Amino acid sequence: MEHIAYLDNSSTTKPSGLAVEYINRALEYDWGNPSSLHGIGIQAETAMYEARETVAKSIGAEPGEIIFTGSGTEANNTALLTLLKSKKRGGRIITTAVEHPSVLETAKRLSEEGFEVIKLKPENNGVVALESLKAALTPNTVLVSMMLVNNETGAVMPVKESAELVRKTVPAALFHCDAVQGYGKLEINAQKLGVSLLTASAHKIHGPKGIGFLYCKKGVRLNPLITGGGQERGLRSGTEPLPLIMGFAGAVKELEKPKDGLIRQQELFDYTKKLMLQTEGVVINSPDGCLPYILNISLPGYRSEVLLHFLESRGVYVSSGSACAKGHGSYVLTEMGLDRRLADSSLRISFSRYNGKEDADRLYAALLDAKKQIRKAN
Amino acid sequence: MEHIAYLDNSSTTKPSGLAVEYINRALEYDWGNPSSLHGIGIQAETAMYEARETVAKSIGAEPGEIIFTGSGTEANNTALLTLLKSKKRGGRIITTAVEHPSVLETAKRLSEEGFEVIKLKPENNGVVALESLKAALTPNTVLVSMMLVNNETGAVMPVKESAELVRKTVPAALFHCDAVQGYGKLEINAQKLGVSLLTASAHKIHGPKGIGFLYCKKGVRLNPLITGGGQERGLRSGTEPLPLIMGFAGAVKELEKPKDGLIRQQELFDYTKKLMLQTEGVVINSPDGCLPYILNISLPGYRSEVLLHFLESRGVYVSSGSACAKGHGSYVLTEMGLDRRLADSSLRISFSRYNGKEDADRLYAALLDAKKQIRKAN
Repeated sequence: MEHIAYLDNSSTTKPSGLAVEYINRALEYDWGNPSSLHGIGIQAETAMYEARETVAKSIGAEPGEIIFTGSGTEANNTALLTLLKSKKRGGRIITTAVEHPSVLETAKRLSEEGFEVIKLKPENNGVVALESLKAALTPNTVLVSMMLVNNETGAVMPVKESAELVRKTVPAALFHCDAVQGYGKLEINAQKLGVSLLTASAHKIHGPKGIGFLYCKKGVRLNPLITGGGQERGLRSGTEPLPLIMGFAGAVKELEKPKDGLIRQQELFDYTKKLMLQTEGVVINSPDGCLPYILNISLPGYRSEVLLHFLESRGVYVSSGSACAKGHGSYVLTEMGLDRRLADSSLRISFSRYNGKEDADRLYAALLDAKKQIRKAN
Repeated sequence: MEHIAYLDNSSTTKPSGLAVEYINRALEYDWGNPSSLHGIGIQAETAMYEARETVAKSIGAEPGEIIFTGSGTEANNTALLTLLKSKKRGGRIITTAVEHPSVLETAKRLSEEGFEVIKLKPENNGVVALESLKAALTPNTVLVSMMLVNNETGAVMPVKESAELVRKTVPAALFHCDAVQGYGKLEINAQKLGVSLLTASAHKIHGPKGIGFLYCKKGVRLNPLITGGGQERGLRSGTEPLPLIMGFAGAVKELEKPKDGLIRQQELFDYTKKLMLQTEGVVINSPDGCLPYILNISLPGYRSEVLLHFLESRGVYVSSGSACAKGHGSYVLTEMGLDRRLADSSLRISFSRYNGKEDADRLYAALLDAKKQIRKAN
């Protein structure tokens, strides 16, 4: 793995050293059932509490506000589907047209259950305007779900302003934020952000796959998606996945301070962007001011998948769209108004703190080769 | 951990060597996103397929019939809640009064949604009689959910006969079996058992916590509980937890052949039971013919929790009831007709292949001490 440039970190990241260490600690020592009344159980419960505290602190929350889930997807499902038991059928749900499928598909289920679902279109730069939320907000709005950072373009949404608007206009409505792509990169304080519910996932920040969390602000009533033994204060039953919870905490402990990380990363992002702009034909799809961990480009005339596999042959790993939309065209770019020629030739370059300029150089060289060797589609 | 007798394996087990090894392989090498189109993703997808094949074979199923979930609880929820979208409201659901809370609580939600829920009472020995299912079956029955082995008493339910009865009488009804406590211990062939849906969990068989599966027989239509990116053939969205899936496969590979395991374990069970019967005052609650991995006893006059903590002080770990019912009395024993004095003094002794006679001896000695040193309640 020494000689590759892994630039697909928004799909998933390699688990960090501390994450792996903590997972193994759970497997070897803290393997008890946290619900058991004896010492082995209590040891597991204590380890879990410490991990929960670490994770909670990463968004300025209380341990009791963190519900561990099996994925960001499950957290998003839980956030939205809480409405099913809320007797609010007929109410309006506002989300954006560029959310992750775990929000959009779940919103669709809610619309089949009698909720009115409004999907805000982004501007041409991929950012949803506060004005469009303002226009859609009605007194019967029951939930607004807006992602923090778009997973394909890195566009940063006006979550704080939107949450404030909702709080002032329709205080009874829930505000949910899918923060999976921004978590660990942007400074997030759930309380200051003003959200009721917030989703994050471990495997995007060098933690293990199989664990995410839903932040549920103290006082917000949530209906569980999964019921049974009453774990996670009754909000998510099932024996707690301690190795993953501890691995999540390990990954969190190794995170850079977002402020420092952003300075470092902005430099690499600008460097990469400059190289891309030097490549004739490349169009930048990510908006100005996007999260500097995601750079979406197009090379019109070359199909994304063909490019992706060519780059791979040079040890450069990127994605076409998001991993979650395997093989499908990008609805995110289409919603931004990109024509098909741009959408079909798009690539997502996504960074982690383990990337450096050598990765950008390798990408640049491979892209120049690709242009020479791949026959243009039209 | 050398000098303890861990006899609480029905709560959870210590991960096996191969499980830990496979988890680490996933964390170090196969850490890609199985949905990514490039080689790192394909490597992860291949590893996942192999693991799925291993797990599927353990119940004689096809890889495509296995849906990995975050827990046995999630699998049970998925199995039951598939009815919510089935337009079968008003239909009858038959289950037993001694199921795991993840079945009972979820059945309760379904009853609130307009289904009729019938809970079959067990006989005095804890086994639900086929006759009582026969009496409850009606043409409008849409689902029967019956556990394979009760988690508190080890009572083995007549699942095969029940599934056959349902198939003959109400062929359109689904038959779900929560096999969490029997899986890896009893020989299970899903097809021969005749079920449509079957639940298992890794952490009860020395696999990691955070992963279970729902077997869904080919041709059975299931509605997903969690929607989004369409993983697990659209039946359970969310990035696949590869470390856990591989850890599950590692644990499966290390399982004894059930037939061999049962012979070995029956001997230890009989030995332990004999020691218990030598202890004045002990009552055996587990029925004859129970799974020899669970031995439920009572010591009337001594409260379960007091006994549990005394035994712990002697390095013996057992549970009072199940870990999932933390701190609550046992509804399982009450449903069997045990009087409160017996139910309040019950202990569950549960074995794994790592236990031996020295553990039983230690338990016996500790129990004799307990009787000497703890003041009888009445």
